[in-house]
Amino acid sequence: MERTLVKDTLNKVGKTVTVKGWVNTKRDHSKIVFIDLRDRTGLVQIVGTGDLLSSLKPEDVIAIEGLVKVRPEKLVNPHLETGTVEIEALKMTVLSPSSELPIDLGKETLEVELPTLLDHRSLSFRHPKIQAIFKLQAVVIDAFRKAMVAKDFLEFQAPAIINAVPEGGAEVFKVKYFDKEAYLSQSPQLYKSLLTTAFERVFSVNQMFRAEPSTTSRHLTEATSLDAEFNFLESWEDVLDMEEYVVRFIFKEVEERCQKELALFEATIPLMSNKFPILKLREAQEIIFKRTGRDCREEKDLAPEDEREICAWAKEEKGSDLIFVSHFLTKKKPFYVYPDPADPTYCLSVDLLCRGVEWSSGGQRLNDYDTILKNVKEWGLQEEDVALYLQAFKYGSPQLGGFALGAERITMYILGLKNVREASMFPRDMERIDIHLSAQ
Amino acid sequence: MERTLVKDTLNKVGKTVTVKGWVNTKRDHSKIVFIDLRDRTGLVQIVGTGDLLSSLKPEDVIAIEGLVKVRPEKLVNPHLETGTVEIEALKMTVLSPSSELPIDLGKETLEVELPTLLDHRSLSFRHPKIQAIFKLQAVVIDAFRKAMVAKDFLEFQAPAIINAVPEGGAEVFKVKYFDKEAYLSQSPQLYKSLLTTAFERVFSVNQMFRAEPSTTSRHLTEATSLDAEFNFLESWEDVLDMEEYVVRFIFKEVEERCQKELALFEATIPLMSNKFPILKLREAQEIIFKRTGRDCREEKDLAPEDEREICAWAKEEKGSDLIFVSHFLTKKKPFYVYPDPADPTYCLSVDLLCRGVEWSSGGQRLNDYDTILKNVKEWGLQEEDVALYLQAFKYGSPQLGGFALGAERITMYILGLKNVREASMFPRDMERIDIHLSAQ
Repeated sequence: MERTLVKDTLNKVGKTVTVKGWVNTKRDHSKIVFIDLRDRTGLVQIVGTGDLLSSLKPEDVIAIEGLVKVRPEKLVNPHLETGTVEIEALKMTVLSPSSELPIDLGKETLEVELPTLLDHRSLSFRHPKIQAIFKLQAVVIDAFRKAMVAKDFLEFQAPAIINAVPEGGAEVFKVKYFDKEAYLSQSPQLYKSLLTTAFERVFSVNQMFRAEPSTTSRHLTEATSLDAEFNFLESWEDVLDMEEYVVRFIFKEVEERCQKELALFEATIPLMSNKFPILKLREAQEIIFKRTGRDCREEKDLAPEDEREICAWAKEEKGSDLIFVSHFLTKKKPFYVYPDPADPTYCLSVDLLCRGVEWSSGGQRLNDYDTILKNVKEWGLQEEDVALYLQAFKYGSPQLGGFALGAERITMYILGLKNVREASMFPRDMERIDIHLSAQ
Repeated sequence: MERTLVKDTLNKVGKTVTVKGWVNTKRDHSKIVFIDLRDRTGLVQIVGTGDLLSSLKPEDVIAIEGLVKVRPEKLVNPHLETGTVEIEALKMTVLSPSSELPIDLGKETLEVELPTLLDHRSLSFRHPKIQAIFKLQAVVIDAFRKAMVAKDFLEFQAPAIINAVPEGGAEVFKVKYFDKEAYLSQSPQLYKSLLTTAFERVFSVNQMFRAEPSTTSRHLTEATSLDAEFNFLESWEDVLDMEEYVVRFIFKEVEERCQKELALFEATIPLMSNKFPILKLREAQEIIFKRTGRDCREEKDLAPEDEREICAWAKEEKGSDLIFVSHFLTKKKPFYVYPDPADPTYCLSVDLLCRGVEWSSGGQRLNDYDTILKNVKEWGLQEEDVALYLQAFKYGSPQLGGFALGAERITMYILGLKNVREASMFPRDMERIDIHLSAQ
């Protein structure tokens, strides 16, 4: 008999159906056994005789042929989408038996520490709350693409292997490339910028690589980046407007499509005011100084505690979980940043912070060939290492800018996860690539 | 004045507009000058006085304020979408001047050899015919995702860095991973398979890496793979049906959305019969032997000339550019292939060929834990190298299968490009990562 998906059993009352899935939980009352059967669409209760069902174990894969019945009102389960029905099992087939589980998947929350979770990564994916993380992440990424396509951006596939590291090589992974050396891309920045000189508007969902010898809760060595870049800017604020549009678009889609996932984490979409507030770095530092007495006014960047403080300010004073911080120090940024004509010490780069952490960086880039070439030399780079980049800007190139958002960070901070590793299906860090590396 | 996009000038007859873009071509009749202005939406003719326009060079970026006028009927240009109008220039501003061009972008086809094309990769993207390649490719990839989402597949981001090479290490790139060694993924095969045990249906658009010391017209060291995997198969033929559905979906979208791009290459969508024909490897080899006298009947795979021949047969005999070839030798395939129960020497793996070349490989995979574990040992692999994979299948795992399509190959063979490098924005091979490597 053709398979009926769990969520469709609601429309099959009085009919005999075959459902297939995993034994999520079992309650055995000896003569009568209750199974919560799980498939990709949810859970449904199976009820059957001990003879038929008592041998089953959690995570056995089974097919159940049975009659869909309405539950008596007092037995309706409001926590289950299919809670108004149950299936009276007539026939059961084990399609694939499970071994005994090393972790308990039957609880509402997986009560394990992060290393245990990751040691059991494959199994953890079966837990509805873990699945919710990655369903939401898929919506974030899909929404990003939709937002860009709606604004006439062309999707491109950013390469991972690069031949040089023009942005500095300390935190880059080296690749043995036949008899040469190559690297893994830290960002598709140069590629997306050069592409604007032909396609005007481009975006990319890509893997980026950072060899940061860091084990913080916020860093991965491989992560998914949502990159956008466009030109014919009228003003550098076009970049802010585009980014704000994209972030709002993503939140709207998540709100519409992920109610169930948000509810599982008791999570809410970040608070937004009519317009995301924006501060220059020095303004932000002044505010932090006034609020906390901590003097960071000469620092070149915001420290993590500064990011938290300025986000607290934005929420209290502007009613916004999100805030742009702009005008970082030109000399501390890559060669392509656009100095503010009003004060070239600072540049038209901008970070987007949300809920205490940086979500994105972006800004306007240099588009004048001679200035770019001068900076390449001033920043101590080799011309041949940025050959394709220089070529793009030599032959007519409008004013451009863009931004990149981190998919894992967005997921993490929407859902309130404690560690970014939870928001990556296969998190890589100094100590782990699927398995703990010291175990090799 | 707000920018009007070139394609929208058709709706602005009699109005004064500002268009912005690149000087695609210039025809200078001294007192009167004609410019074809290019933006991301197309070309439009500008006409103006020599005083205003004669100083312009190809690829200068300009803004033109001018009056949109209907052209006299005999001056309509049928080759241009905006061929019924032209803009009488009133004011011209150079936004960014171009240097002298090293290649001529003004011709209908870029008449340069491949190495020259790639040496000028950034500039080449400005040519309408080169742009068409990547617009079509973006549609192929978007259509793949749409097809999968419509069938309830979840998108995931496949990791590039892996800790071991269970499928054999000859053609894998090594990464220096802190003080350890890691590798670049040749395929997300194991990840997508293990994910089905939780999510049932998954897909991924990802970069894959092959250290093939090859300089053929069909190989790249980094390419974009369109991966799908699903379970609860009733039969291994479910995999063929799903793949056929996806390919038809992609073609339909390309046909609907890429008429202009197809026309530029005088290209057509591959010929399809009601159902893609399917042959077992040995049947295909027998047909090739009968047609050509070339005896490949003992070979473990189809050679390039065999692929061309069997595609010729499919077209002549079945009216199809596409053909499935199945039942390759189990022992020549990876440890997870599913042997045909009727004859375990051959396995339920399947390639999809089109227009003389392999587009895809796929098939049913083993889902029984004990058999997988036995094979891991028999194939000489280390259990810890496939730890997450084994974990997924230990705890209840339905029958599964899937396939992977190469985005560049699809693009190449739809458009009839001569070399797969033309279908990759930033092709990497033994000798080139953006620049020719011996130039380093």
